[in-house]
Amino acid sequence: MTNEILKGLGGTIPATLPNALRDHGLLVNTAMGLYGWGAELEAVYDGLTSALSAEIWDREPVVLRFPPILPRSVFEKSEYVASFPQLFGAVHAFQGDEYAHESLEQAVTKGEDWSDRTRLTDFVLAPAVCYSVYPLYSGNVVDGGKVVDASGFCFRHEPSTEPGRMVSFRLREFVTIGSPADASTWFGAWHRRSAAFVRRLGLDVRVEAASDPFFGTTGQIMAENQREEGMKAEVVVPIGGHPVAVASINYHRDHFGRIFDIRSTDGEPAHSACVGFGLERLAFALVAAHGPSTARWPHAVRELLWSGRPGAPESADLDPS
Amino acid sequence: MTNEILKGLGGTIPATLPNALRDHGLLVNTAMGLYGWGAELEAVYDGLTSALSAEIWDREPVVLRFPPILPRSVFEKSEYVASFPQLFGAVHAFQGDEYAHESLEQAVTKGEDWSDRTRLTDFVLAPAVCYSVYPLYSGNVVDGGKVVDASGFCFRHEPSTEPGRMVSFRLREFVTIGSPADASTWFGAWHRRSAAFVRRLGLDVRVEAASDPFFGTTGQIMAENQREEGMKAEVVVPIGGHPVAVASINYHRDHFGRIFDIRSTDGEPAHSACVGFGLERLAFALVAAHGPSTARWPHAVRELLWSGRPGAPESADLDPS
Repeated sequence: MTNEILKGLGGTIPATLPNALRDHGLLVNTAMGLYGWGAELEAVYDGLTSALSAEIWDREPVVLRFPPILPRSVFEKSEYVASFPQLFGAVHAFQGDEYAHESLEQAVTKGEDWSDRTRLTDFVLAPAVCYSVYPLYSGNVVDGGKVVDASGFCFRHEPSTEPGRMVSFRLREFVTIGSPADASTWFGAWHRRSAAFVRRLGLDVRVEAASDPFFGTTGQIMAENQREEGMKAEVVVPIGGHPVAVASINYHRDHFGRIFDIRSTDGEPAHSACVGFGLERLAFALVAAHGPSTARWPHAVRELLWSGRPGAPESADLDPS
Repeated sequence: MTNEILKGLGGTIPATLPNALRDHGLLVNTAMGLYGWGAELEAVYDGLTSALSAEIWDREPVVLRFPPILPRSVFEKSEYVASFPQLFGAVHAFQGDEYAHESLEQAVTKGEDWSDRTRLTDFVLAPAVCYSVYPLYSGNVVDGGKVVDASGFCFRHEPSTEPGRMVSFRLREFVTIGSPADASTWFGAWHRRSAAFVRRLGLDVRVEAASDPFFGTTGQIMAENQREEGMKAEVVVPIGGHPVAVASINYHRDHFGRIFDIRSTDGEPAHSACVGFGLERLAFALVAAHGPSTARWPHAVRELLWSGRPGAPESADLDPS
């Protein structure tokens, strides 16, 4: 019943999305790489959110949630532009008078390019959640491996019909900031822990060495170095026959400690590492593996996501048939 | 304990924010009008989310959640630019080669204005949630007053230190699309219902005729007309001595029906109305009224937000003292 509109629109969702998602109308598409979702997927996101909280609880994390927007000052400082200029989204706004407004309105109405009618604001779209975390520790000395549980919507400008590649998506990140030993121990431990978590969701898991999509020819060398030095790994699962990374584990060395002036107790720039989980991709993988009816998902998976909590979709059968 | 960073940063939150929020470190500020928040406020947002679900449950709504991004094509069609050019955020991206990248990077490093280095993408920031809803019904005939429960992050470019005026915030909207009678009945009913809901939160409530911040001199006339014709009302509560609108009720006549080609059964463009609740403002008002310790909030308010649900912050005392 709540699904009527989603079902009706199923046919317009890109054909490359997994069959389960397309046919069962769990999403509505609004543009390439951009989707709305219904109560059923929201229950899955809620379940993943609480199951992930249980994974980090023992570390007594600082829990922080962020809006989808990052201050431009933080973004500019972060050196993101140097590495990933092709991915960021900058927020522009109109700041003109009534004459300029009339001209803008005409350009929009005529379907002209109105790129030049706006100016850069003090805001960009958050490319990852942990960029909001580091500046909070600027000028601080951290000891014993600070742990932050952070989440929010992220944006990457890579519109695509590829399953799970979205321009706007939810990222849950566990971040540690501390000594080189703190960060590298964390990095190693989360290879195992993140794979174990995803495996408990009943998914086929591989952990692979990976690299970030650094821009240009220099970027290729940076990516090769990153891979050779084992600085990034991804937890990969199949979605509709495609291998898709649902989590990534990243060791930043002193990159953010240096940029944001965070030090460990020895006075050196702090090291940091993070593990990030893509909630949409995990949800899509769950539907692809276990079917669109969460009521029929394996008992252990349902327990992990909704153990004993009211709001578990016991009766909400996603399968319209 | 989870609050240590928030407390440490309390002093940098703008002084005009309510004392309770500033002193008790419920927020971290990242820029003017932009804040991160901790687990305590997230529990309040969760409580508001489920309490609002209970308000609309009887209407068997289509439940839709949306990312913070709206397709530019929908935005351009919506006529938002005509009315509120000062508020929208357009997403720009870099689409140049390695030479352009080098130049961009230099501009960023030197602190130059890099507005012209990016181009408009196919995406804008969602100015309101219901703009994602109407296009889903394009070409449809709706009967009996379709009801949609929609939510997501919205963006308005009005950076401010005013309490509760944020550039990025969560909006929960209940939308109806149908005949003129469906929409006007809804509009009238939600004057009472939204005020009653906010009153049950233990807040002092006024419902006031209101107008939207239409741009320019023509906009002033539009705002006056809107107010005279009683097309918009706001539910206003005090936050730290300031009157702040925590909900608005809006009657759009056939504006969206006409633009997005939605018809009612008589073949005419459908009418629509919506009520929107600002989750951050409601949460701030709750803290301002009942104090920073949710454990000490009135029993009836706690019941409304967290009735019997695990995860209710029984033991999480927001008061660091």
